[in-house]
Order: sequence, then C-alpha cells, then structure tokens
Amino acid sequence: MNAFSPPPRLLMGPGPSNVAPEVLAALARPTIGHLDPGFIKLMELIKHQLRLAFRTENRVTFPLSAPASLAMEMALVTLLERGDTAIIAQNGVFGGRMAEIAKRAGAEVRLVSCEWGKPVDPEAVRAAIRDTRNAKLLAFVHAETSTGARSDAATLCGLAREAGMLSVVDTVTGLGGIPVFVDEWQADAVYSGTQKCLSAPPGLAPITFSEAAVAAAESRKTPIQSWFLDLTLMLGYWDGEGGRSYHHTAPVNALYGLNESLSRLLAEGLETAWARHRTAHEHLAERLEALGFAFVVDREHRLPQLNAVWVPEGVEDAPARRRLLEEFGIEIGGGLGPLAGRIWRIGLMGETCRMENVEHLADAIGTILPSAKRAG
Amino acid sequence: MNAFSPPPRLLMGPGPSNVAPEVLAALARPTIGHLDPGFIKLMELIKHQLRLAFRTENRVTFPLSAPASLAMEMALVTLLERGDTAIIAQNGVFGGRMAEIAKRAGAEVRLVSCEWGKPVDPEAVRAAIRDTRNAKLLAFVHAETSTGARSDAATLCGLAREAGMLSVVDTVTGLGGIPVFVDEWQADAVYSGTQKCLSAPPGLAPITFSEAAVAAAESRKTPIQSWFLDLTLMLGYWDGEGGRSYHHTAPVNALYGLNESLSRLLAEGLETAWARHRTAHEHLAERLEALGFAFVVDREHRLPQLNAVWVPEGVEDAPARRRLLEEFGIEIGGGLGPLAGRIWRIGLMGETCRMENVEHLADAIGTILPSAKRAG
Repeated sequence: MNAFSPPPRLLMGPGPSNVAPEVLAALARPTIGHLDPGFIKLMELIKHQLRLAFRTENRVTFPLSAPASLAMEMALVTLLERGDTAIIAQNGVFGGRMAEIAKRAGAEVRLVSCEWGKPVDPEAVRAAIRDTRNAKLLAFVHAETSTGARSDAATLCGLAREAGMLSVVDTVTGLGGIPVFVDEWQADAVYSGTQKCLSAPPGLAPITFSEAAVAAAESRKTPIQSWFLDLTLMLGYWDGEGGRSYHHTAPVNALYGLNESLSRLLAEGLETAWARHRTAHEHLAERLEALGFAFVVDREHRLPQLNAVWVPEGVEDAPARRRLLEEFGIEIGGGLGPLAGRIWRIGLMGETCRMENVEHLADAIGTILPSAKRAG
Repeated sequence: MNAFSPPPRLLMGPGPSNVAPEVLAALARPTIGHLDPGFIKLMELIKHQLRLAFRTENRVTFPLSAPASLAMEMALVTLLERGDTAIIAQNGVFGGRMAEIAKRAGAEVRLVSCEWGKPVDPEAVRAAIRDTRNAKLLAFVHAETSTGARSDAATLCGLAREAGMLSVVDTVTGLGGIPVFVDEWQADAVYSGTQKCLSAPPGLAPITFSEAAVAAAESRKTPIQSWFLDLTLMLGYWDGEGGRSYHHTAPVNALYGLNESLSRLLAEGLETAWARHRTAHEHLAERLEALGFAFVVDREHRLPQLNAVWVPEGVEDAPARRRLLEEFGIEIGGGLGPLAGRIWRIGLMGETCRMENVEHLADAIGTILPSAKRAG
C-alpha cells in the first residue's frame, strides 16, 4: 500500500490552519513514555506556556487530550450538576452546542438568543440574569467560528461575577489571534483548540480553570457524569504533587507539536501576533471589498482571523470553493447551520496569517468570480 | 527556547510502544483540512484497514479522536441509559474503570469480581447472568493491561448473546498482538488504542459497533449523556452518506500516523504479527525465569505482549526501574492499584516486539539484579 501523500494546500478555512515545518518536525520526534521524567518536564513547560498564552496564573491549566468540542463538554459537565441552571448565550453554532451539552448533563438552560453575525448582547444577558433564579453559570462564545463575531468577554464575565455566577468562555478561535485575558476577565473556565491561531495540528484543547471553578468541581454533590472528564481525577496526572498517577495515556507526539507551536507564538510575542492578525485582516477586507464582497459582521466586532463574507449573487458556493481548492490549492470554509451556502469563512489564523497568503487568495477569488462581479 | 529533545528510549512498558520511523515521518506530513476530499479518502482507507485489523465487516468502525479511555466511555454510554443494568466483569484495573463509567452513566452495575492475574471466569459470569434480571449488556476486558491476563472473549460474548444481552469488549492491549475476531465473537462494541500493538503514538482509539449496537443507540429513549460521544452525530462525519458533516475537527496528523501503522501491520499480516508476539514472549519468559522471575499469570492465559512478573524479593521496585531507564534507556512499567510496587509490566508490543529488544532487556535486568538473585 502506498503511503498517503496529502495534496498541497493553503489552509484558509475555519481551521485547521497551516502548520509550520518546525511544528510538523516536532511531531515526528521519537515517542517516549507518558510518565517518563523527560515527558513530565515537557508537561510542566507546556502548562507554563499555556498560562502565558491565556494570560493567567491559574494552576489548573493544561491541554486536554481531545478536540476542543470535548473541552467545551468538560467545562460544562465539570461545573453543572443535574438540576442546575445555566444561562447560555447563543449567537452562532457553538453557543447552540454549549446549550445542547448542558441539557444533556441535566441542567436547565436559559438560552439568550442573539442575532447570528452580531456579538452576544450584554443587555440581553443582563436581563436573563435578572430574570433567572439561582443560575449557576453563564456560558458564551468569545470568538464565534461560525460567523466571525467577537463578543465582549470582559463585560460578559463581569456580569456573571456580579451575579455570583461562574463564567465559561469558548475562545477556540480566539487564542493567539486576538487578546485573551483570562485573569483580567476573571473567567472561570476557558478553553481553546490547537488548530486555529496556535497553528498546531487538530486534536488537543488547551483549557484553564480558576480556583473558584476547581472548588466548585471539588464540592459537587454528585460525581461528574464522565469518568474521562472528571477534573479531580485528571489532575492526578496533569498536576500530581509528589508524583503523577496514571489517568489516560497522553498523546505524546501531539504534545511535542503543541509545545513547538507555543514556543513560536511566545517568541513572536502575543501583541505582535495580534497585530499581525489585525493587519492581514485589514488588507484582506480591502481586497475583498474591492471585489464586491460584503462582510457578515460589523467592522468593530469582527474577528480578524475569521472573515465571514456573503457569497456574492451569481456565485454558486460549493462549485466556487471547489475551484479554489482544485485550481489554486486553497481551502476556505462554507457556512454552517442557517448560513450554509450563504457565506464563506476565510481564515487568517496563525501561520496562515501572512500578507502573501492574503494576496494569493484575493487574486484567486478575483480569477474565479464571474466577470460581472469582477467589474463591480 | 530550545526545542524539546526526547531522551532515547526503548519502550518496554504497558504502552506507548516504540513507533516506527515511517510512522513518525507520516505524522509530519503537511496538515490538510478535515473535510478535504483527499482527507475523506484517507478516512475511508483507515476505516477499511481497521475492519481488517478487527476482523469485522461492521460498517461502523472508525478511530475515535481521543484516548482509549474515552472509547471505553463511548461504548458504555452509547449502550446504557439511566436505570439500565450492566454486568461488568473485573479482573484488573480496567474492568473497574468500566464499572465506574457505567455507574456515572446512571446504570445499575452487577460487578463480577474475578481474581487479578486470572482471566474472567465464565462460570461466574454465567451465574451473574442467571441471577440478574434484564441486564442489557455484559462488559469485560479481553486483554487486561494491568495484569497481563487474556480472557476468553469468544465464550464471554457467547454467554451475553445467549442471554439476549449486548457485549462490550476492551481489547486496548489486544489488537495487533493476539487474535481479535469481532465478527466471529459476535461482539457488539469493541475498542482498542493506537499506542499498544499498533505502534502508533497515543491519542486515538479504534472502535467498532455491530448493527445491533447501532440499532440500540438509535432506539434509545433518552439522548446519550455526552454530545461528543453521541454516535448518531459522530457518524455524520465518519460515515456520512452523500457528504460529510462537521462534527469536530479530526486529528489529521495523528490519523496519518495511524494509517501508516495499520499499513505496516497489514503488510506483515495479522497471523505473522501474532506469531511474532508469541515467539518473543516465549523467549522473554525463558530469560526471565532463568533470572528467577515468576509470572503473575498462568502460562495459558498470558498476553504475550504484556508480561507481568513479580518484583523479586530484595529488589526495590522504583529504584530498579529508574536504573533501567537511566542506565539502559529502557522503560518498563510498574504495577497499578493493589499491584503497585509488587509487579513489573514488560511490554512486547508492536514495533517493540523484537528478539534483540528481549535480549537487551534481559541482559539489563540481569545486570541490575542483586548478585544473590543473579546466582539464584
């Protein structure tokens, strides 16, 4: 059987983003044991790097050995017990997923429905908090990957705190691309993914819990429904004082890659990386607007790393994206849920976020647009 | 920050096992999108390879994007609803973990406690089935990694089937090292890991469900407690007829590695791989017995790939293993649970399972044993 040879791709969709050769090379280092003293040093280093990236001093900060969807589930099932009430803001696919997870965990969900493509509305959240008795937490998506909208995490976490509630923040697409300030926000559970602005391959999910969240997990009346996601058990491995105990076998090689990608991000500097995303986004917006595209999200609430634009009239979504892939080797994303077929999602995440990629994509889109549009 | 450089290790513990250079190289191929047509072809190929490895024609056969502990959880939470009864055999750590997961899912657990180091006792299971009304499934560990005991999966699955129950089989350490015959056993949910006899890095978990198991999942009265593990949603990605829908972002590079490791195993041939494990085990047993070691498990029930031996009198567990690691670069495993400090677990899994590794380990152990033992 011939070895699989991936086609050459420029990854400009909603993730995965391009992975640097140094990170790919790190993946291929020899596997060692997940309890090897050498590996435990690496674990400590990765925890340290993640604290820097999340801008937090949270002791409990580590990479979950699974995709970010499971980190979402971990945050919610750790903090919610059967019968608890959660206020969950939805302004896209991922807020809806949060609500679904909370319901399956037996929580009552008070859904705050916001318009897709807009940030979560703090006034609507405030009203929901006022009208809901004994809600335990507020959950929302900071960087909504399905629409490209950025919500005001500081304000929303503040509303939760004032009401004595915990906060859960999804910043899967945020971390590394825009400011994330876990401690300044006083957020209680925040998670991300590796395949967006961190530019490591998909498969791991950085997550961090405040001491209040850890205390809530430790004082539950009922066990966490998932053995795998039980924070108190998992910390025996990721945070064992005086020795690590076996919980599951950590994905050693994937963690080599994450370590390398975090080293690159921190060497560049978070502020520099944020500025790089902003600048590339502005240039992409100029080029796309010149081609007649309109953005889904208002300028001030846009995620620079996730550019959602309306598919122009006269352009067929799937065939156009297929041409970009087949003729130019460029992957961009389509819409999800009610936006399927109506928008394109163009990622400028991490390694992908370079001026030459912006130019290459804009040139390619210009080529495939019907000439009427090009003239417009 | 300097790149992490793993120390040179011969991995002879309970996993991970050594990973072939070809598999490491596969990990480092450029990341592509998880919905890329090229990647979808790879998904189909991996499903095909896993069916061959599991000896099954089950349509629903795929690699879960998480460690094997989560595959255990997936098998159980898919088939159990709150209030269902499960008969779970325990003859080591992992049977106990199954029971814990089933309880957290709200099931009543009838535990069949068997002696550690022995296979699951079919008579005890038969009695439990007779005495338990309306049990929905029988779960057991085929290859108990904590003791090195192999249970009789064909007989146990047969007992479940005769009683109209579903069967859940843990063969994390089994697949690729000893015969696994999912269809012949008529097992309903069977899962494994990548870091044992498949010799891919840890992080993925091959899993397969019979049509009866899929039907049970589809006819549940309540939703599966976990959104991430909901088989019916996950199949939209892994098995979507007429197009794949987004569920989570698959760990693309880890799947490159699994594909390569499965290609190697299937090129060697399963029977040849099983024989290789048997032969290496026999040689290891000879060498260790000559050094005065006694095996935990009777000859006929031993897993060739996981050799549990009693730590000889006069030998301190942790310092001796540390010497093997530091002076010889060899990792072996200690005991878990009640066997901690009392046994060593020596893995001969996948790539590690080579005669020269057996010799190297036996020589090293001979060197570090106190001279009294060496003479004995």
